[in-house]
Amino acid sequence: MTETGITSSVITITSTLREYDLANEIAAKKADTVLAWIEKEHLSLSNVLIFGLYFTGAALASRLDKKAKVTVIDIYPHLAELINGRIDFFTHISEVPCRRWSLIIDTTGLGGVDKQTLSSLYCDALIVEDPCSDASDMCICSASNRREILMNHSAPKKGLLTTTGLNTKTSGTMTLTVAAARHAAAEAEKLCGTLYAVSAADFPERILFKERDMLQFQAVMSQPALRISSLKEIDVDAVLRESLSLIRTEIIEVETDDRC
Amino acid sequence: MTETGITSSVITITSTLREYDLANEIAAKKADTVLAWIEKEHLSLSNVLIFGLYFTGAALASRLDKKAKVTVIDIYPHLAELINGRIDFFTHISEVPCRRWSLIIDTTGLGGVDKQTLSSLYCDALIVEDPCSDASDMCICSASNRREILMNHSAPKKGLLTTTGLNTKTSGTMTLTVAAARHAAAEAEKLCGTLYAVSAADFPERILFKERDMLQFQAVMSQPALRISSLKEIDVDAVLRESLSLIRTEIIEVETDDRC
Repeated sequence: MTETGITSSVITITSTLREYDLANEIAAKKADTVLAWIEKEHLSLSNVLIFGLYFTGAALASRLDKKAKVTVIDIYPHLAELINGRIDFFTHISEVPCRRWSLIIDTTGLGGVDKQTLSSLYCDALIVEDPCSDASDMCICSASNRREILMNHSAPKKGLLTTTGLNTKTSGTMTLTVAAARHAAAEAEKLCGTLYAVSAADFPERILFKERDMLQFQAVMSQPALRISSLKEIDVDAVLRESLSLIRTEIIEVETDDRC
Repeated sequence: MTETGITSSVITITSTLREYDLANEIAAKKADTVLAWIEKEHLSLSNVLIFGLYFTGAALASRLDKKAKVTVIDIYPHLAELINGRIDFFTHISEVPCRRWSLIIDTTGLGGVDKQTLSSLYCDALIVEDPCSDASDMCICSASNRREILMNHSAPKKGLLTTTGLNTKTSGTMTLTVAAARHAAAEAEKLCGTLYAVSAADFPERILFKERDMLQFQAVMSQPALRISSLKEIDVDAVLRESLSLIRTEIIEVETDDRC
């Protein structure tokens, strides 16, 4: 959408892509990578347990729901709104009687589900999301015990889900959403005639996890991802898509003895 | 302000500095530079005309109001709320009977007050704000006729107000506010333990100039300038102040024959 800006020489261009679109696209990339690995490993899924129900957990749950019985655990009960009613949802592992799963996926990251909980469960395959990304520092790497949890687990097939490409400190979908929008803003500012670009950059996690206001969270995430002030017409959606295309996800296979 | 984040390992830190504080600080830097130049040039001010009433115009008007009779012209009548009632405000030069001024300051930038209007006025000194900054591109430099307007004016003393330091495409206070917050976010992300930083980045100009909603504009500008998700306590206000300190303003003196 293009409108006249502060003077008649300047236009304001707003992306049709919203923050939600960016977050969903990133979560979809992660989920697609997981599904491709399941296919490659010829995993036969009857039941799947997912720890962590945020963008990544929700994208995985909705895709795997078509293939197996899916159960999701998250400490925040209000997140259950993110998934359909067919999927079982619990806030603690003690509420789940089953101890044996075809596949367990841990998306909880820093400070997430503890080692004891995961090691008490049996599964044919375990995927743990690495919260570290290409620009993680020593503080963040030291704070994460996800690789250790994965390495010491008894599952016969194990994979570390990694996401990189935008030089972020973590691989979190919200981190990458903010980074993609900011990367696109910086790229838009390199174009001739751009005065400045503003990427959507609220702090929706505070609304979701502190205020627990799902409606307000959805309102914030529905805002345009990028707005620019420019002398010329620019395809801002294309700039955003270019930044999203830099994000890479992969599953690194881990043996029990590997130091991944 | 520090709160628990998405898990107990992560904290959220919010700056006490708001977007308004950043914008006012930048406008104050520009106004201080103008006042220092007035002093250095021993200008005796009886009446001052300012074109453009946004952050910079408002900061200049409130400071100069203590020294001379100040008149401000802006095409947007609702901006009159930004200044006190002692200052004369008009939306067009035709409403102003006076043609001779101690000082005229043009802050209108790209697509601003036209050459004919400025050249029809007499003054002891003329200051024109250069909309270009340290990262301006050819499109923006070509679109600006501010230097030409200044060079061809009959005023005996002339200065070009320039603002640089954050590699922005223009010197606009709003551009610099967005850039300072984004620079601080990038610096905060370099600190060990920061997961990600989010700088305030609404598009308040749309609210102010398109919707003309001053209350909503003030609400948006009152939001914290920076929020970070981190494993460690960090002084986010100090990070913002460091970014603001990089902004440099100066007045480049211009002779009628100079090619500035």
